[in-house]
Amino acid sequence: MSKSESHIYTPYQEELDSARAKFIEMAGMVESQVNDAVKAIDKLDAELAESVISRENQIDKMEVDLEQLCTQIIALRAPTASDLRAMLGTIRCIGELERIGDEAVKVASMTIKLQEESLKEKGYREIRHLSTGVIRMLREAIDAFARMDAKGAIEILAQDEEIDSDYASAIRELITYMMEDPRNISRSINVLWVLRSLERVGDHAKNICEAVVYIVKAKDIRHGNIAALGIE
Amino acid sequence: MSKSESHIYTPYQEELDSARAKFIEMAGMVESQVNDAVKAIDKLDAELAESVISRENQIDKMEVDLEQLCTQIIALRAPTASDLRAMLGTIRCIGELERIGDEAVKVASMTIKLQEESLKEKGYREIRHLSTGVIRMLREAIDAFARMDAKGAIEILAQDEEIDSDYASAIRELITYMMEDPRNISRSINVLWVLRSLERVGDHAKNICEAVVYIVKAKDIRHGNIAALGIE
Repeated sequence: MSKSESHIYTPYQEELDSARAKFIEMAGMVESQVNDAVKAIDKLDAELAESVISRENQIDKMEVDLEQLCTQIIALRAPTASDLRAMLGTIRCIGELERIGDEAVKVASMTIKLQEESLKEKGYREIRHLSTGVIRMLREAIDAFARMDAKGAIEILAQDEEIDSDYASAIRELITYMMEDPRNISRSINVLWVLRSLERVGDHAKNICEAVVYIVKAKDIRHGNIAALGIE
Repeated sequence: MSKSESHIYTPYQEELDSARAKFIEMAGMVESQVNDAVKAIDKLDAELAESVISRENQIDKMEVDLEQLCTQIIALRAPTASDLRAMLGTIRCIGELERIGDEAVKVASMTIKLQEESLKEKGYREIRHLSTGVIRMLREAIDAFARMDAKGAIEILAQDEEIDSDYASAIRELITYMMEDPRNISRSINVLWVLRSLERVGDHAKNICEAVVYIVKAKDIRHGNIAALGIE
């Protein structure tokens, strides 16, 4: 996985590269799922939402296959140091991708529900605002993984706080809206779940960034333990 | 990790057993967190809720240490077959435990918020009902892990569907309650988050059960793929 360690292209290196390429492919698919789920809810496009839901199986299959590949590499090649971290970190990130895919499917399901209940404009604006931040963070987290850029990954972490704060204010606004008119409650709850899903996508993107730091720097910075880095 | 493979007690076996023992210890702590969080919300006991929140650091530390131990075992001992699955499956479950701990902390935080807003009786009954099922499922999942009982683990999976259905009906009831009186909205949303957290604990318990099956049977039964087992 790390190019610095081997200049000779071996079958082992080929396997590591193949795992990396497959991860990037899966990440691209999951990113599309989130993009499409957000687009579908914005346009109340049930067809697009259905296509997100129908692609879930494909992602689940990629998860299982890719995890198996990484496990096989560990079993057969017994990698140590940075290659082992790359495999374990990738396994961790595969799980995060799969959970992001699940959230996209939840958003898509809500789109279908909202369309049936023909939700008015309100609430969408907040979804749009939050989703812009979340999609950006996810794209950057995947980029940081692709480039194994620990410094970039650490910079991205700060975006999660922004997302959490946008999320909290969106929820507050939604509650006010519900209080104004109880007829808004049922559909507002659906919007609430969408906001929650988007916020979770941000959390998973953060976990991917933390895994990149683990792979590159061999440091565990979860649980706000950035101090462990003693970073430049 | 698996006793059947070695009758001679080696330093390697000792390491595997130590990882297993530490996992059980962490699981016990996480289980207490959930129990206490549920008790705290039931009695609106802010002090107990605070103690749940204050114990989060300890669990985070256990997560990091235990994951490191498993990683070291993989790096130094290069286990194959069932021992490797045991280590990878344990790492997966450590993550699930940590996420369960997070949900317990969320419930505890809500308790403190609810107490400040002095929520009336309604809503609690639903929390109590759901939490009984979730706590039972979690305890059984941990037991299945401790005994490496794949058959038991598969049986537990069915409980998650029951929890999901209890959760859905609790949410419906809560929405009705909000509609009856908009003054209930803000606090009902807090109860909603508690229900959601409990439902998530059920999901994580399910993931632990699936990991037990992976470790023991070398089969990936996630994504409803129980057919892969061809089980007795």
